[in-house]
Amino acid sequence: MSKNRIKKHHKKLGKAPGSVIYTGDKSTKKLFIDIFDYNLEKCIEKELDTVEETFDYKHSNSITWINLNGLNHVAEIEKLGNHYNLHPLVLEDLVSISQRPKIDEYDDYLFVVLKMLHTDNDDNIVSEQISFILGKGYVLSFQEAEGDVFDAVRERIRQGKGRARGLQADYLLYILMDAIVDHYFTIIETLGDKIEDFESDIFSGNVSNTVNKDIQDLKREILRIRRAIFPLREVINRIGKHESPLIEPKTKTFYRDIYDHLIQVTENIDIYREMIWSLMDMYMTTISNKMNEVMKVLTIMASIFIPLTFIAGIYGMNFDNMPELHFKYSYFILWGVMIVLFVGMLYYFKRKKWL
Amino acid sequence: MSKNRIKKHHKKLGKAPGSVIYTGDKSTKKLFIDIFDYNLEKCIEKELDTVEETFDYKHSNSITWINLNGLNHVAEIEKLGNHYNLHPLVLEDLVSISQRPKIDEYDDYLFVVLKMLHTDNDDNIVSEQISFILGKGYVLSFQEAEGDVFDAVRERIRQGKGRARGLQADYLLYILMDAIVDHYFTIIETLGDKIEDFESDIFSGNVSNTVNKDIQDLKREILRIRRAIFPLREVINRIGKHESPLIEPKTKTFYRDIYDHLIQVTENIDIYREMIWSLMDMYMTTISNKMNEVMKVLTIMASIFIPLTFIAGIYGMNFDNMPELHFKYSYFILWGVMIVLFVGMLYYFKRKKWL
Amino acid sequence: MSKNRIKKHHKKLGKAPGSVIYTGDKSTKKLFIDIFDYNLEKCIEKELDTVEETFDYKHSNSITWINLNGLNHVAEIEKLGNHYNLHPLVLEDLVSISQRPKIDEYDDYLFVVLKMLHTDNDDNIVSEQISFILGKGYVLSFQEAEGDVFDAVRERIRQGKGRARGLQADYLLYILMDAIVDHYFTIIETLGDKIEDFESDIFSGNVSNTVNKDIQDLKREILRIRRAIFPLREVINRIGKHESPLIEPKTKTFYRDIYDHLIQVTENIDIYREMIWSLMDMYMTTISNKMNEVMKVLTIMASIFIPLTFIAGIYGMNFDNMPELHFKYSYFILWGVMIVLFVGMLYYFKRKKWL
Amino acid sequence: MSKNRIKKHHKKLGKAPGSVIYTGDKSTKKLFIDIFDYNLEKCIEKELDTVEETFDYKHSNSITWINLNGLNHVAEIEKLGNHYNLHPLVLEDLVSISQRPKIDEYDDYLFVVLKMLHTDNDDNIVSEQISFILGKGYVLSFQEAEGDVFDAVRERIRQGKGRARGLQADYLLYILMDAIVDHYFTIIETLGDKIEDFESDIFSGNVSNTVNKDIQDLKREILRIRRAIFPLREVINRIGKHESPLIEPKTKTFYRDIYDHLIQVTENIDIYREMIWSLMDMYMTTISNKMNEVMKVLTIMASIFIPLTFIAGIYGMNFDNMPELHFKYSYFILWGVMIVLFVGMLYYFKRKKWL
Amino acid sequence: MSKNRIKKHHKKLGKAPGSVIYTGDKSTKKLFIDIFDYNLEKCIEKELDTVEETFDYKHSNSITWINLNGLNHVAEIEKLGNHYNLHPLVLEDLVSISQRPKIDEYDDYLFVVLKMLHTDNDDNIVSEQISFILGKGYVLSFQEAEGDVFDAVRERIRQGKGRARGLQADYLLYILMDAIVDHYFTIIETLGDKIEDFESDIFSGNVSNTVNKDIQDLKREILRIRRAIFPLREVINRIGKHESPLIEPKTKTFYRDIYDHLIQVTENIDIYREMIWSLMDMYMTTISNKMNEVMKVLTIMASIFIPLTFIAGIYGMNFDNMPELHFKYSYFILWGVMIVLFVGMLYYFKRKKWL
Repeated sequence: MSKNRIKKHHKKLGKAPGSVIYTGDKSTKKLFIDIFDYNLEKCIEKELDTVEETFDYKHSNSITWINLNGLNHVAEIEKLGNHYNLHPLVLEDLVSISQRPKIDEYDDYLFVVLKMLHTDNDDNIVSEQISFILGKGYVLSFQEAEGDVFDAVRERIRQGKGRARGLQADYLLYILMDAIVDHYFTIIETLGDKIEDFESDIFSGNVSNTVNKDIQDLKREILRIRRAIFPLREVINRIGKHESPLIEPKTKTFYRDIYDHLIQVTENIDIYREMIWSLMDMYMTTISNKMNEVMKVLTIMASIFIPLTFIAGIYGMNFDNMPELHFKYSYFILWGVMIVLFVGMLYYFKRKKWL
Repeated sequence: MSKNRIKKHHKKLGKAPGSVIYTGDKSTKKLFIDIFDYNLEKCIEKELDTVEETFDYKHSNSITWINLNGLNHVAEIEKLGNHYNLHPLVLEDLVSISQRPKIDEYDDYLFVVLKMLHTDNDDNIVSEQISFILGKGYVLSFQEAEGDVFDAVRERIRQGKGRARGLQADYLLYILMDAIVDHYFTIIETLGDKIEDFESDIFSGNVSNTVNKDIQDLKREILRIRRAIFPLREVINRIGKHESPLIEPKTKTFYRDIYDHLIQVTENIDIYREMIWSLMDMYMTTISNKMNEVMKVLTIMASIFIPLTFIAGIYGMNFDNMPELHFKYSYFILWGVMIVLFVGMLYYFKRKKWL
Repeated sequence: MSKNRIKKHHKKLGKAPGSVIYTGDKSTKKLFIDIFDYNLEKCIEKELDTVEETFDYKHSNSITWINLNGLNHVAEIEKLGNHYNLHPLVLEDLVSISQRPKIDEYDDYLFVVLKMLHTDNDDNIVSEQISFILGKGYVLSFQEAEGDVFDAVRERIRQGKGRARGLQADYLLYILMDAIVDHYFTIIETLGDKIEDFESDIFSGNVSNTVNKDIQDLKREILRIRRAIFPLREVINRIGKHESPLIEPKTKTFYRDIYDHLIQVTENIDIYREMIWSLMDMYMTTISNKMNEVMKVLTIMASIFIPLTFIAGIYGMNFDNMPELHFKYSYFILWGVMIVLFVGMLYYFKRKKWL
Repeated sequence: MSKNRIKKHHKKLGKAPGSVIYTGDKSTKKLFIDIFDYNLEKCIEKELDTVEETFDYKHSNSITWINLNGLNHVAEIEKLGNHYNLHPLVLEDLVSISQRPKIDEYDDYLFVVLKMLHTDNDDNIVSEQISFILGKGYVLSFQEAEGDVFDAVRERIRQGKGRARGLQADYLLYILMDAIVDHYFTIIETLGDKIEDFESDIFSGNVSNTVNKDIQDLKREILRIRRAIFPLREVINRIGKHESPLIEPKTKTFYRDIYDHLIQVTENIDIYREMIWSLMDMYMTTISNKMNEVMKVLTIMASIFIPLTFIAGIYGMNFDNMPELHFKYSYFILWGVMIVLFVGMLYYFKRKKWL
Repeated sequence: MSKNRIKKHHKKLGKAPGSVIYTGDKSTKKLFIDIFDYNLEKCIEKELDTVEETFDYKHSNSITWINLNGLNHVAEIEKLGNHYNLHPLVLEDLVSISQRPKIDEYDDYLFVVLKMLHTDNDDNIVSEQISFILGKGYVLSFQEAEGDVFDAVRERIRQGKGRARGLQADYLLYILMDAIVDHYFTIIETLGDKIEDFESDIFSGNVSNTVNKDIQDLKREILRIRRAIFPLREVINRIGKHESPLIEPKTKTFYRDIYDHLIQVTENIDIYREMIWSLMDMYMTTISNKMNEVMKVLTIMASIFIPLTFIAGIYGMNFDNMPELHFKYSYFILWGVMIVLFVGMLYYFKRKKWL
């Protein structure tokens, strides 16, 4: 995936800076806009087909949340952006899905980009870019495609429970980001499970041929998640310290709380990272131990039978004058000698703890 | 355990921020409140069953220490929190046992979360979250379950020895935290013992099959302890620099002392960490050495007997015309040659220090 | 190449500081100057043969971009430098191609050095030094040789599209640097492809004899690119914070955008760096695994046949009195015993998962 | 030793903070106090048995250096401390020998703890805690036991040479600390010798069975020394920047000089640390090389004689119809074939550089 | 050498701080002083035998450069130092050759210590300490022995070319330091050559027995050079920021240029450091690959001939009743079977890519 991102940037080579070009997968995402307009008294929820329908809500006194899915619909996004007076570079970044989490502060709005992580049906970790514009009385959110982690937030707004509907747009942005960060915990839980599975596989010696590659893949996945999450700490930190009427002082306590959660997530990621490196060590040691075991079997077999075979070879020689050959019990005596040798060597290897 | 913590966070997915939800093990902890209310003249000590009984002490002129065990009793904690005017996020953090050590500064109280580490009967290291609220004239402490490291503190308050009863609530918080940090030394002593046991086992070659896994487990345990202790340094540091009437200047010297202790603890943890990594190295080298020894036995046996067996094979051939076969002493001469070869090779391997 | 750079510096040993000496490859680069002089209304584009022809444009009111190719033409560069009043050390650095990316701030101009990376026809990564002088109303650029990444920029100026022609020289510098940084993405894409090729080669066991050396070469190439790109972050950062009439406040947003891109590039480079190290690990493990497999075959063959050969040896002995030799079916019984042994050992190795 | 330190802390578990409890080895150290009281004109030197005898010197106009040996004499130290008005935590730290080097600034004195390192008769590195109190006109020093590195300092004071007797107490503290830091060079020289001995042992292949363990021990010793010395840099740095009448500006130049020495010591320690890690690498490579050599001997012996033995085996078969057996010279021809094979294989291995 | 330095410090144990004691090799260096006294009009150059002869130049209006070779002539250096009013610690540091690069700022002069690196006739890297005193109108330089890298500087002063004679003493110090730093490039070029030689040796398998030790030595040499060069960056940086009439603002641009060069040198050193570590890896992999190859030959020989030898052994048995022995063509059939087995196994190993 990291490679894809880089490749996608390529499409823009030679274009003027500020060109609004979607860099994601163009296939099948349809435009889907849903809007919430609410205050303590009312809560309007609508699904819209065109961006123009959202324009009426800009100057309402209530809080407006416009959520747009489908970053490939560049023209619509530009229309919306122009209506809300967004800087061309913001529009460029909105649709360029290889952004790293960041916050850009403009005069009358904040632009926040982050990564929404969730697991798909096969337990693969999927990363989707989501951007927020926080202005006076509104939050715009832009997602690559439909499907997000905000259902609980929507329900809370609908029901008007808790502080959800009484507070300003900065609090709405907070609960949206909080929902995203809470989902990070699910992701690292998935990671933790994978690592523990590997660990018990390696320890039980039950390793497939691809364990080497699988560990590398896991390592890379952690790198990727790390890259998606780590810069967000700085973003949240800067929101918490932002001096503007957009973020009220009492909301900052809540952003500090997200920050604490993020620290927990990133600490866990770093622990998993160390664990992955240890996995590789464990795997190498397991290989060494196995080879050691193989060597021991070989050594024991060869060390015991090679001298015995030599003795047998001696008495298979055809010299005319080999007196032992003609004694009556020499064959049986020889068997005795061989058995003594055999037992002696077994005892020697036993004492060396090779058996 | 780190995994458990992450899993527990999961329970809150989709809940409104500030929801006070206990994230620990719900089983069998009963609510248990004990209260100390003292000054230079008097010292009242009580065990209470309901939080309401504590409300009377809020406005006493004496120092009040309310210690609540059983974080699963969320309703009682909310009652107490509302009585003491605590922020909803503080209540949420109080009962969410996956917090990392932190300090949050509110207008008229400080909120401190840290980890109490002690060893259970099987020498396992147990980590329990403990939170403190330091206000004007009172300290609230919240523990997951009964059983703590404060018995010596209680005894000191009862007997009124030293500075214990004459000083303000900030000093009470100090001696409580000092007791916790002093216990960290016991923990790292336990760790040190484990590492030295491993080391002498590995060096004596007396390694079980699970040594690989055991070292990984120890590595992880140190990571976990590190994570519990390291952030506390910043917490103590910030208390020591806090500018508010809650912390008196003369108490800051004492907090600086805890800080020094913490630095000692964390330095020791980092030394143990390096030692664990070295253990792994030592173990790998031990394996290599063993394989080397096995190889040498194999090489010596094979190198000595393979040529001798070849010679025996030669004179076991059935060619009609093999003149040596018919000389009278050739069998004995051959034995002589073989013994010379045998001794020569022993000497060669001796010189190579393989024997 | 890094070595070449160092060697080239050598040429200057013993020269006075500020001596303008070209340190690159002197062979065949011809002087080539092209000039753009434009504002909103007009756009003059010329190719010149001597630097003197550029002197007229210095005091034009329009934006002038003079692009000089061929750093070996030291005399011409000194002429141009003196005309534009450049410090002797700037001239020295201009033609000394082993500079690391840097920005030097002088009273009435900024001097920026950076590396232009592109791939040649064989997919090798080529690094070329390019220097910019940004003054009031003009940008001078100095390239080692013809051929650059600015064709799209030129086209944009010609067509006067977007902001290209309306803005000041600081914006021109921005679009030039943006073009260079955009090309870095192509470079790291090339790197990513190489790494993935290696990875699938190693995993499929399809490794050539030079894989060891190839990985080292790739490692070094990444080090080299890292060194070319990392210092640029600080350069861009300082342009963005530069307080002078040369950089207008509204252009700083654009430099912040380049900075974001650079962070993405450098993060990708660091990920590739970790991946390379992992490649080496994977390769080592692959070798170990192969040796293990070889050992297993050897062990199985030897362990099965050595005892059988011993038995055959026994009955090849020539003792007079070996009763078994004379029983009628002993030969066939012996075959039976041998087959039982053979099958037993196969079963044993099967159970050990060596087969 | 690091473990011992930790264990010793344990003794204080449950004690009130500020309890003055000696944490070292209690056995046999007797109290020993020596005092210097000098200025440019006079120099009194005495050995005292009780701390009370020192009290007279507190208010002398001359510089007083009271040196107390025997930290187990807690009561005497408390008496002295109270006379000089020391904070209880200072007294606690004085006798608690597991302190890390630190400086605490109090209103009218500085408290400095550091480690005195010297080698005992067996070249083991011994660490002893020493604490200084620097006040107006006096320096108190507290040592675990008799025996220190100050003999040259004492001699200089007695003889009044150089600046020794003309300057203030801050200069006295400087020459004491300088003497300690100068001894660190002896210590790291001892370390360097040990490492070079190891290195030449490993390179000459002359490694004992315990080399593995010995390297680990050395590694740990370096960790321990590092821990004793590194924090001292910060201590000296803070003395050099201390703004109080206790440290005169002209003395600060001298502290800067100690600082430079410390940097040299710590750099050397870090170099030795890297060298130790390289030693381990060298040792591992030596093992690998040895195994390689063993393998080669085995391979050569087996590869040469196994096919020859096979050929001999062929002609030991008892088939009725084996025409070669009956040719007159076939035995001699066979010898020829075998010798050709033998020489051919020797040549092959020679070309492969295995011989 | 690093060890020598440490040992040399030892000589001073017990001496008063500020004692001027030469810590280098005392053998055969003779005192040698050369002096330049110049301004735009004149240039006097002399070689002197006693320091007293230099005293006249102190108060000349021209720039004076006194270069003293032979740090063992402590008495002369003290005389010169006292004449120029140098602090005792400066004199101590001047002759103590284990200094790390540093700058000490005194009221009317700057004291700079650095390392001059050059290669001797055997391409060994030699480090010599050189100290500068920069005062108003004069530069003093102190070298361990005759022979330096300043010949080009002297020539430039003599000829009065460029800025050399028109500028102040701070510019003289700059060109001296610039000459030293330019020589660092030669040193790292030598290093680079050594590393590339090693690399091609290892890759071609042409490794001597000492490669292990040689790599360690190279590693240590790089550590040593690093230690000599890295602190110089801070020194140059502080000169560039020094606020005093000693360093004129326009000279600071030149010091910034040295700083840039130093960054290039140190970056190259760090790249070489990484390359050395990779060398070790490559070497280890080469060893593993070789062992693998050896194992494969052994496995192939043993696996092919062991079963064949077994078969031959079977028909060498002396049972009375072995019907196969008496069939007419069984010997030839057996040969057929053996050849089929032989070819089959060759094919098997071919498919496994072991051949």
